[in-house]
Amino acid sequence: MEVSNLLKQIEFIKEVDKLKYILRKTKLFGSERNENDAEHSWHLALMSIVLAEHANFQMDLLKVIKMLLIHDIVEIDAGDTFIYDTQKSHDNTVEEREAAKRIFGLLPEEQADDFIAVWEEFEEQETNEAKFARAMDRLEPLLQNASNNGGTWQEFGVAHDQVYAKKQVIQHGSSAIWEYAEQLINDCVEKGILKK
Amino acid sequence: MEVSNLLKQIEFIKEVDKLKYILRKTKLFGSERNENDAEHSWHLALMSIVLAEHANFQMDLLKVIKMLLIHDIVEIDAGDTFIYDTQKSHDNTVEEREAAKRIFGLLPEEQADDFIAVWEEFEEQETNEAKFARAMDRLEPLLQNASNNGGTWQEFGVAHDQVYAKKQVIQHGSSAIWEYAEQLINDCVEKGILKK
Repeated sequence: MEVSNLLKQIEFIKEVDKLKYILRKTKLFGSERNENDAEHSWHLALMSIVLAEHANFQMDLLKVIKMLLIHDIVEIDAGDTFIYDTQKSHDNTVEEREAAKRIFGLLPEEQADDFIAVWEEFEEQETNEAKFARAMDRLEPLLQNASNNGGTWQEFGVAHDQVYAKKQVIQHGSSAIWEYAEQLINDCVEKGILKK
Repeated sequence: MEVSNLLKQIEFIKEVDKLKYILRKTKLFGSERNENDAEHSWHLALMSIVLAEHANFQMDLLKVIKMLLIHDIVEIDAGDTFIYDTQKSHDNTVEEREAAKRIFGLLPEEQADDFIAVWEEFEEQETNEAKFARAMDRLEPLLQNASNNGGTWQEFGVAHDQVYAKKQVIQHGSSAIWEYAEQLINDCVEKGILKK
């Protein structure tokens, strides 16, 4: 029983290696190189530990980290959707739900159910842990674009209001981080790297 | 005080982006592409969650993950050392200790001390958490080399005894995982991708 669990888990571990090939639109800090989903997930998980003290609430940090480590795994099958893409909904599409079933389904049944539930909790954005995790997911590309002369905002003609609308959810996880982020957005407008 | 903490934390978050450029000797699964330290750290952290049930002991999984997310950050300054390099000690060199001071030192003082302590705990290999984290760090490249027709073993002429000596520490974290790993090493010898 334990051995059989282990073999299933090893298959999952091999399968998720593919996350390292899924490229995001955003580039690394001060760089022309696209970030991949595995690097992104590492960065967010570490950020959640570093920034946990700024959360608006008590939270289960282990669950936040788990969410962040797995939140993009569905993109192995469903691909990365650009957050400012108006044609395609970013969250929880049919493809993503099928991907969750297939990939997490490689794990032993009880663990698969748990991973799918944690991924759904992130997508649903109702719990404290999901809100803080989402704040991390919105903060990192803001920092990257600010360091890259506007990055994807410039590249894809994204304006201030669209950025503000996407980023303001940060406040549901952390008022302190949102205060910083709002100021950074304003600074980017003043510098001319984000159009009003 | 909180704002000043946040600014220091943001500087740290930007600095550790450099981990994405530190290349390891091992390649991704079934691939010619070298893995970088950020991807590696993501994979190990996720593996520790998936495989936690196989640990020899009760452990603080949050601490294991924290160790794995930060264990290679010192390589931003000190570079990656190949585990089978006989000229240079892999662990805790003077350069690595200086790197820990500089990079973790970007964080607010109390947090910096905590991160340095967690990194040292991993290096010292005395606690349960450090032993399980090390097991993950030894398992991933074994899986990769096995999937890559011998990978770095073939590329750098590494033989069975050297691999066995490095991998057997897995048993200190998990007897069940070591049983699997030992079998996998034997399979690799039989397939001729690891020389006795």
